[in-house]
Amino acid sequence: MRKFASGGLRSLLIHSFQQKHILRPHHPSSSLSSSLPRFLSSSTPVLDFTPPSTSSMADPSASKLPVTLQNINPKILKCEYAVRGEIVTLAQRLQEELLANPGSHPFDEILYCNIGNPQSLGQHPITFFREVLALCDHPSILDKSETQGLFSADAIERAWQILDQIPGRATGAYSHSQGIKGLRDTIAAGIEARDGYPADPNDIFLTDGASPAVHMMMQLLISSEQDGILCPIPQYPLYSASIALHGGTLVPYFLDEASGWGLETSELKKQLEDARSKGINPRALVVINPGNPTGQVLAEDNQRQIVEFCKQEGLVLLADEVYQENVYVPDKEFHSFKKVSRSMGYGEKDISLVSFQSVSKGYYGECGKRGGYMEVTGISPDVREQIYKVASVNLCSNISGQILASLVMSPPKVGDESYELYCAEKDGILSSLARRAKVKDALNNLEGVTCNRAEGAMYLFPRINLPQKAIKAAEAANTAPDAFYCRRLLNATGIVVVPGSGFGQVPGTWHFRCTILPQEDKIPAIVTRLTDFHKSFMDEFRD
Amino acid sequence: MRKFASGGLRSLLIHSFQQKHILRPHHPSSSLSSSLPRFLSSSTPVLDFTPPSTSSMADPSASKLPVTLQNINPKILKCEYAVRGEIVTLAQRLQEELLANPGSHPFDEILYCNIGNPQSLGQHPITFFREVLALCDHPSILDKSETQGLFSADAIERAWQILDQIPGRATGAYSHSQGIKGLRDTIAAGIEARDGYPADPNDIFLTDGASPAVHMMMQLLISSEQDGILCPIPQYPLYSASIALHGGTLVPYFLDEASGWGLETSELKKQLEDARSKGINPRALVVINPGNPTGQVLAEDNQRQIVEFCKQEGLVLLADEVYQENVYVPDKEFHSFKKVSRSMGYGEKDISLVSFQSVSKGYYGECGKRGGYMEVTGISPDVREQIYKVASVNLCSNISGQILASLVMSPPKVGDESYELYCAEKDGILSSLARRAKVKDALNNLEGVTCNRAEGAMYLFPRINLPQKAIKAAEAANTAPDAFYCRRLLNATGIVVVPGSGFGQVPGTWHFRCTILPQEDKIPAIVTRLTDFHKSFMDEFRD
Repeated sequence: MRKFASGGLRSLLIHSFQQKHILRPHHPSSSLSSSLPRFLSSSTPVLDFTPPSTSSMADPSASKLPVTLQNINPKILKCEYAVRGEIVTLAQRLQEELLANPGSHPFDEILYCNIGNPQSLGQHPITFFREVLALCDHPSILDKSETQGLFSADAIERAWQILDQIPGRATGAYSHSQGIKGLRDTIAAGIEARDGYPADPNDIFLTDGASPAVHMMMQLLISSEQDGILCPIPQYPLYSASIALHGGTLVPYFLDEASGWGLETSELKKQLEDARSKGINPRALVVINPGNPTGQVLAEDNQRQIVEFCKQEGLVLLADEVYQENVYVPDKEFHSFKKVSRSMGYGEKDISLVSFQSVSKGYYGECGKRGGYMEVTGISPDVREQIYKVASVNLCSNISGQILASLVMSPPKVGDESYELYCAEKDGILSSLARRAKVKDALNNLEGVTCNRAEGAMYLFPRINLPQKAIKAAEAANTAPDAFYCRRLLNATGIVVVPGSGFGQVPGTWHFRCTILPQEDKIPAIVTRLTDFHKSFMDEFRD
Repeated sequence: MRKFASGGLRSLLIHSFQQKHILRPHHPSSSLSSSLPRFLSSSTPVLDFTPPSTSSMADPSASKLPVTLQNINPKILKCEYAVRGEIVTLAQRLQEELLANPGSHPFDEILYCNIGNPQSLGQHPITFFREVLALCDHPSILDKSETQGLFSADAIERAWQILDQIPGRATGAYSHSQGIKGLRDTIAAGIEARDGYPADPNDIFLTDGASPAVHMMMQLLISSEQDGILCPIPQYPLYSASIALHGGTLVPYFLDEASGWGLETSELKKQLEDARSKGINPRALVVINPGNPTGQVLAEDNQRQIVEFCKQEGLVLLADEVYQENVYVPDKEFHSFKKVSRSMGYGEKDISLVSFQSVSKGYYGECGKRGGYMEVTGISPDVREQIYKVASVNLCSNISGQILASLVMSPPKVGDESYELYCAEKDGILSSLARRAKVKDALNNLEGVTCNRAEGAMYLFPRINLPQKAIKAAEAANTAPDAFYCRRLLNATGIVVVPGSGFGQVPGTWHFRCTILPQEDKIPAIVTRLTDFHKSFMDEFRD
């Protein structure tokens, strides 16, 4: 590592304002956004989003306090994160009401289908992973005789191996800011085994889940509103939120619902050129594969076109591959973008590619552990040093999450004591998810609802053809029609789903995202509740 | 929680550039910083910082790749984080060389005194904390008979309590974005017991260590370069780094070395007015108590003045209280700013106060667990909703860190099985740190070195009166004189310390920060190595 460009502290400090004239106006974007048309470009269909809230922008009771909505960072006001937004806040309130006053609602529990959080809905963790974590948390039991009776032999062995990779066996110490080197070696070996192409542990940055890694790349690439990030629509709202927080511009490209959420490079090209014609400089392309919320798994040939497109257009390919283990259909397979680009003969000098992985998804579903990594390739050493510097400001990601990330990339192998149990647990979860993905058939049976299959990931994203009367009622309630539907659904059934407007959708179309994560024995009841609700909703609003 | 201001996604999207004229120029600050005087205000002494690196700003070999130092976010280039900077990179290289080629340097190990990372230097974790963490990681052993033999009864009981606070006992699920409610209840009770004033669990935001909490507040308060944050000089460089990354202005106030790093409100007032006269809008005051890198513990009376100052000037008080357990002198005591402000009769409507706490410091030193919280008070509900929204974009902090944060605020009590061991471990660590803080006497014995006592925290910050000849030699080597000294020290002894220029210091003065964390049996050898080095350095450069 070379020396970082220095003098930073100095230039940060207050100075006489020669530069006053070049400061941007205080809240440029917030003053603009309200006067903007709902969309923007003639060549792109108009997007639909929830109308701005009219909730009080001033709180007179707090007027003596120095921080107000008027003087905070306007980028925060612009940011939205529907997955934990309004509907979830309502759900939490209903849950409290049910607890305080059972029978106060026409359901007895809240079913959180809003978020990919498998263990909150009863999925059990993989035993081997938890054994290793527990042993690394309290290594002094490792050589006690009782431990043999409580833990599998390979978990004990793996814990020793991991401890030996940590300087001083100190699981309570800050690690290298990219993560413990030995764990990165393990992860690199796992990537290599997956792809058949080499991986370099120095390219791995371990992070507290994938989200901080995405933020880090957005922070790196976005200097101003002129910097654009191409994102699929519908998209996972982490991307729109992160772009908003970093002050960039989201350049949408549309997935084609009619062809199973197909990703056409002609659409990418069109949107890229449209953006450039408006003075936007597109820096990166986000691809989520398998798709969230859309569940499609990209064909290898399609991936090659995407790689070629990024290479030719000078875009960083930001590959969200956190659902790489979640593929449910026999005719599709996950291929990493790294493997695809290497198979095309493209190496470090040809394509800038960042792949995100997380311990929260897959069959492991360890959301609460906040483990993940990004593999950064095709980024020059001096730029990578800057990424390292940003990582170093937060010192390191949590060590349990780091250990878990190494475990998911290197699970038990044939012959290990845990192997059989591990396979049974893994296959049990994945085959059950595959069965649960078939809920789409029930959705397709509803009046005015069409739903593509979930080839992968953890979600269904049905389209609801809402009657005009419902749309008018939503308008009157100052809410988006799909949010109106989702709120009604929650109030009637306790089922929490996220309105399509939180993800973006072709204007005039309405969707919701629903996870396939409730346990299988609950699915029939959910389908019944949803079916009954939908029927009565349509009866109320049918034109 | 009310609805978030919406319409964000919409205004993020690419639009025809009516607003082109109000975009700020692409890299305003980077183009300015190089032409700026080293400092800035006639009323403030000039600060010293390491001169800008002249390392290559272009890498011709990577020219085909789309990301270069010229087109990344210039705020990242401005950011510096000395604690893991250049000297540490050199240390890592020397360590590798020692490993590959023992005897290649005049020392046989690297002593990392650069960072407050106790367990990396041999400090053991508190047994009770680790027992509870291990049991929560693998709850299925909780009711096995062998577990009774391996774990203390109160750790088992505590693990059950914690699991019962987690919906579905799912330690692998995302939690509420502020952290698990039951754990926040425990923390609030701990704060209340500490201060004697009520604490509200809804004011607690659990985070992955204190750093993300600091970033969140900077992100909230900083909209542009015009927003200033008052920071002590010397300061912990997380603050300067975070202000740089969010594009604000650091407004320095100077601690008075001569009076044991005293914090005078007259100095605060002077700097505040100076900043305002330059068009800067100071939003917040950072106070680090006990001090980092300076080790002073504020007197309660002084704290009252600071609270009064913030209240009158409309500043948010950002209180870094992560060293609250680290006080080593009988004549000083830690008082939280919350307690001090409440004792003055100031409540929610009077003072905006954010207190940061971490599991990384204290006697626990669990840096790798990344646990911490901020307690946010005197912030109106609508603004707090925005903080919640930002927290929700990253879903939640890691659950083990959350659990540990609850444990440090609610350790074993008299009568618990673990109590005796817990006290012995805690007292052993704190009394040893108090003894190690006396290394300052050895530093004061060195020619031209003066060092205030460390009343608290984990650092000494000696001042070195460097000879002119050394300053000239540093200039010739294009480095700051203190960095020159620290580099020489590392190369000669393997001891890693951080140059004062990374923290800020009164111009013309030179310091370094050194932790008091090496184990006691190593201290005599460290003192000898340091003394020998310093003598030979002075012999070489004495004027």
